Amino acid sequence: MLQTFASPISSLLDSRADGHSLPAGLYIRDDVFQADLDVFFRKHWICVGLDCDVPEPGDATVVDIGNSSLIILRDDDNQIRVVHNVCRHRGSRILNAGSTVISKLVCPYHQWTYELDGELTYAPHMGADFDKSCKSLRPVNFKSIGGLIYACLSDNPPEDIDRLEQVMTERLAPYDIRNAKVAHQTDVIEDGNWKLTIENNRECYHCSANHPELCVSFVDLDFGFDPEALSPEDLEEAREHEALYAERTRRWEADGFPSAAVEQLVGCATNFRTQRLIIAGAGESQTPDATAASSKLLGSITRKDLGDTHLWGHNSWNHFMGDHAIVSIVIPLSAGKTLVRTKWLVHKDAVEGVDYDLEKLTDVWVATTDQDSELVARAHAGALDPAYLPGPYSRFSETTLDKFATWYIERMRAHGY
Amino acid sequence: MLQTFASPISSLLDSRADGHSLPAGLYIRDDVFQADLDVFFRKHWICVGLDCDVPEPGDATVVDIGNSSLIILRDDDNQIRVVHNVCRHRGSRILNAGSTVISKLVCPYHQWTYELDGELTYAPHMGADFDKSCKSLRPVNFKSIGGLIYACLSDNPPEDIDRLEQVMTERLAPYDIRNAKVAHQTDVIEDGNWKLTIENNRECYHCSANHPELCVSFVDLDFGFDPEALSPEDLEEAREHEALYAERTRRWEADGFPSAAVEQLVGCATNFRTQRLIIAGAGESQTPDATAASSKLLGSITRKDLGDTHLWGHNSWNHFMGDHAIVSIVIPLSAGKTLVRTKWLVHKDAVEGVDYDLEKLTDVWVATTDQDSELVARAHAGALDPAYLPGPYSRFSETTLDKFATWYIERMRAHGY
Amino acid sequence: MLQTFASPISSLLDSRADGHSLPAGLYIRDDVFQADLDVFFRKHWICVGLDCDVPEPGDATVVDIGNSSLIILRDDDNQIRVVHNVCRHRGSRILNAGSTVISKLVCPYHQWTYELDGELTYAPHMGADFDKSCKSLRPVNFKSIGGLIYACLSDNPPEDIDRLEQVMTERLAPYDIRNAKVAHQTDVIEDGNWKLTIENNRECYHCSANHPELCVSFVDLDFGFDPEALSPEDLEEAREHEALYAERTRRWEADGFPSAAVEQLVGCATNFRTQRLIIAGAGESQTPDATAASSKLLGSITRKDLGDTHLWGHNSWNHFMGDHAIVSIVIPLSAGKTLVRTKWLVHKDAVEGVDYDLEKLTDVWVATTDQDSELVARAHAGALDPAYLPGPYSRFSETTLDKFATWYIERMRAHGY
Repeated sequence: MLQTFASPISSLLDSRADGHSLPAGLYIRDDVFQADLDVFFRKHWICVGLDCDVPEPGDATVVDIGNSSLIILRDDDNQIRVVHNVCRHRGSRILNAGSTVISKLVCPYHQWTYELDGELTYAPHMGADFDKSCKSLRPVNFKSIGGLIYACLSDNPPEDIDRLEQVMTERLAPYDIRNAKVAHQTDVIEDGNWKLTIENNRECYHCSANHPELCVSFVDLDFGFDPEALSPEDLEEAREHEALYAERTRRWEADGFPSAAVEQLVGCATNFRTQRLIIAGAGESQTPDATAASSKLLGSITRKDLGDTHLWGHNSWNHFMGDHAIVSIVIPLSAGKTLVRTKWLVHKDAVEGVDYDLEKLTDVWVATTDQDSELVARAHAGALDPAYLPGPYSRFSETTLDKFATWYIERMRAHGY
Repeated sequence: MLQTFASPISSLLDSRADGHSLPAGLYIRDDVFQADLDVFFRKHWICVGLDCDVPEPGDATVVDIGNSSLIILRDDDNQIRVVHNVCRHRGSRILNAGSTVISKLVCPYHQWTYELDGELTYAPHMGADFDKSCKSLRPVNFKSIGGLIYACLSDNPPEDIDRLEQVMTERLAPYDIRNAKVAHQTDVIEDGNWKLTIENNRECYHCSANHPELCVSFVDLDFGFDPEALSPEDLEEAREHEALYAERTRRWEADGFPSAAVEQLVGCATNFRTQRLIIAGAGESQTPDATAASSKLLGSITRKDLGDTHLWGHNSWNHFMGDHAIVSIVIPLSAGKTLVRTKWLVHKDAVEGVDYDLEKLTDVWVATTDQDSELVARAHAGALDPAYLPGPYSRFSETTLDKFATWYIERMRAHGY
Repeated sequence: MLQTFASPISSLLDSRADGHSLPAGLYIRDDVFQADLDVFFRKHWICVGLDCDVPEPGDATVVDIGNSSLIILRDDDNQIRVVHNVCRHRGSRILNAGSTVISKLVCPYHQWTYELDGELTYAPHMGADFDKSCKSLRPVNFKSIGGLIYACLSDNPPEDIDRLEQVMTERLAPYDIRNAKVAHQTDVIEDGNWKLTIENNRECYHCSANHPELCVSFVDLDFGFDPEALSPEDLEEAREHEALYAERTRRWEADGFPSAAVEQLVGCATNFRTQRLIIAGAGESQTPDATAASSKLLGSITRKDLGDTHLWGHNSWNHFMGDHAIVSIVIPLSAGKTLVRTKWLVHKDAVEGVDYDLEKLTDVWVATTDQDSELVARAHAGALDPAYLPGPYSRFSETTLDKFATWYIERMRAHGY
């Protein structure tokens, strides 16, 4: 008799072995997906967009997270606002998907009208005794950290976002992401669970065989290696690279650019890691030849040799370089489908075709994202297979995956599973 | 821990607040959808078609309701029959979707053959002792009321269909819908719950901003308004219109055309409302200029000024005018998908291009149905959003929605939920 | 209140009436489908392919059964191997769907590399203490019987496959299927439950009205008839045919070709039936004119008059004729979708266009499979209909369906349902 789907989620959590990938059910079951949406995408801070998605007053954009639809907008006082895209009358969606420019938020169903701060100011035929003040659009908790918008759909957002805010506010300041320009955006739907998308992003063990474009500028061994797996030449090179980090980090920090690794990956609610990484080859940017794609550098940056400040969250990864940045946001669609939204940022005054070439700018991460999508689909298909058994993470090159799996179990437990 | 989907349907019913739209779960949950199908589309009378869908002996048409498939046919004695489209041998579908002409019902699988009254008369290889008399096609309870076919898939159909029958038999007689011609039919699939389709149809609060074509002939304020929401001019016009109803109703009834509102909307099994409504503008028909689309009037009608006899059921709406009628039937496909089938009826002898122009005939309700489809999809997307909260119905222009929601709760309770 | 979907599977099994088709739930419910997959496609022997799908060392082909993915390959020692297509690291699919040629099995994710016997020989960055010997690809139990590959995904495969093996090894020997050539293959997805696909295949009651092409060479009455259903002429012909069987079987067996019916259909785990059938008309093959399609006969066969050795399993049907064979494999995709994979086999040295014409070879079963697909869809649509009631099998022409339904219930019971 088939028992698999009858086991409670807590049993799946119990059965996870340290150092191993998760039990299959945690990747593939619909009930786990619903729990994941609730725990990780409602009760934790998630990255949803950027201040510069709505650069001008009246700009608004819709971001859907599961069945939630958020309106990110900039009001007439130049403040960012995030409200639920649900009319307080009978629940109609107010704005369509995509971006638009508005002076008020008017529900197309019965013309209920809200100011850009969410206040209901017009609701005809409701009677003189109708109290509009109780029917503002429901606000969403959010923080803009260095121009990245983090939202939490719960009323009790985790407090330890503070450390991320403190660390990244300083590190992102020179890049002025808040005033950057979104030069390009892609949406890729991966046929896999969101945790497999994140696991895939947390290791570069797969890079050398799968990401030829990325490997020009990215050093796959920076995220760990088994000395015994390398040839004497490769090992010497790897050791030299380790030494380089100490030297470069010292110099960058001396110049006022915080660079050392900071991570909060287990034993916490808000999961993040940042570090200034060395860019290989020409050393400037994640482009096909590792030279800068944009001649107008970001924010107040004047040097192309500041490496790659990477930032991970449990639903995002980011790379901030002198000339451009990429921001990838992960939005689960179902147990086996995950949206990866990638934005390429340049200086707000950079002009396509003059200051940067769009193909050079986007080539590496367009290719990398497509390659990763294929790998995530393979991993998910395997997790669906009854022959799947949790397998061992490399203790050299997959330690961050082990931490992610551990954090996942911790957070599920913390929310009653 | 996520509890939403664990709550029993009865808790959802309990949580409904008077004067407010339904709790989200009642619109979106799959278990509620299955219950709805059973309660409202199997155990209540539903409109499934028209006598004039099968105008000649041997005509047959298939109507699917959920997973049920009904054959509506006209037998050799000119009687309408409704039987289940399921062979009594191993259950094969007998007729395909759509309409056809038949002399017998022959199952294509093993040639079991039924007379048009459903009697099994041929079943080869079943042995001499096989009793064919027990294997007639299963009949469906139905009533033709003024040419509208109401079916009930349960063995205990509600008795209070009698009042609908009594009221509408008289009102529909002059239109002779039984012998009309179906000039056009459309199937539109709305991305929303069937109850949102019906709610949307029960109010005209949304008309002025969304239905420019319909508003030429339809008076949106006829279904209620807040005096304080209107300008002095609009209010005076609205008051005049109210006075007109008394006068016109008196005159129509004096001429032998019952016109006053009759409604059975709460505290009953069979939900309906009818009233003869005033047509605006040219006053004749729901067409782009409010003049009649067909020069050959329906049935025995000789006047174009008889207004619009509207009829609502819980799965249909109808407008009977002098020159034509529209019949819309609502068939739920899933919690979030609903089929709206609309038929345009004219006099059986009216000839397209001679007596009526098809575009003029269909323009208003084709446009209105498309516009409503968009609104229902918005409302359903909002109901799916965890930020949805039941909202207040206008006590002026949405009282019939409040009654519909109340009736829905009553009927669910009556069937054990 | 709707109770249907709340009933346990065991109640559905209890409610089955002898001589009747199964209760609807057993055809349509998702939970039953999951149980079916587990019981009938994991814990019983199923036909998955052919030795000659991988004719040369290094040939590999992927077969998906539910969420399981199997690699069938031929190793360097010319041995067939069947392993799970799941990397032992983090579960990635190793090979894509379809066929390929390989020297090793290399997972594209992190280059873990397995020999063709499944042994893990390369897993970089896992540390010196990592024990590769525990991480071979998981093997699948299988048997090649006369060139047909039967697999069992459970660790306790039923032992009574022995009788099938004993009977068919002898009967298939002259056809040398192990060394045949797959001349053509089709995948048809039927919109019905796998049991309806099998039921449809187990009777020829539907043949005369639905399979004109097949009926040239196939005698529909061979699988039973009601004498009272036939005209005197047809009855005489049918009786003559019965007499022919005794005579032909005697002659075939005297020539060393086992021909009598052998069946193991109830009271057993492994369900099969075989018999050498008479081919009608020209008597040689299942082709449009019943003459051989391939001039090069299979294996060591030298005669075209050896009839049709049919073989049924619970997920396959086969016809072995002098000139060619067809092998159909049934793979359930969901409660309402079933893949039917058909392979046409000829002598390995037969050349298309010289020794056989592909259209003549495939015409009958391409047409028959399409016709059956339509019938299965009709039967499934009917089983979904709440008006479906289990119907009586003909005790003349559907006795094998009754046995199949009985066996289905027995096996479910044997596995704890």
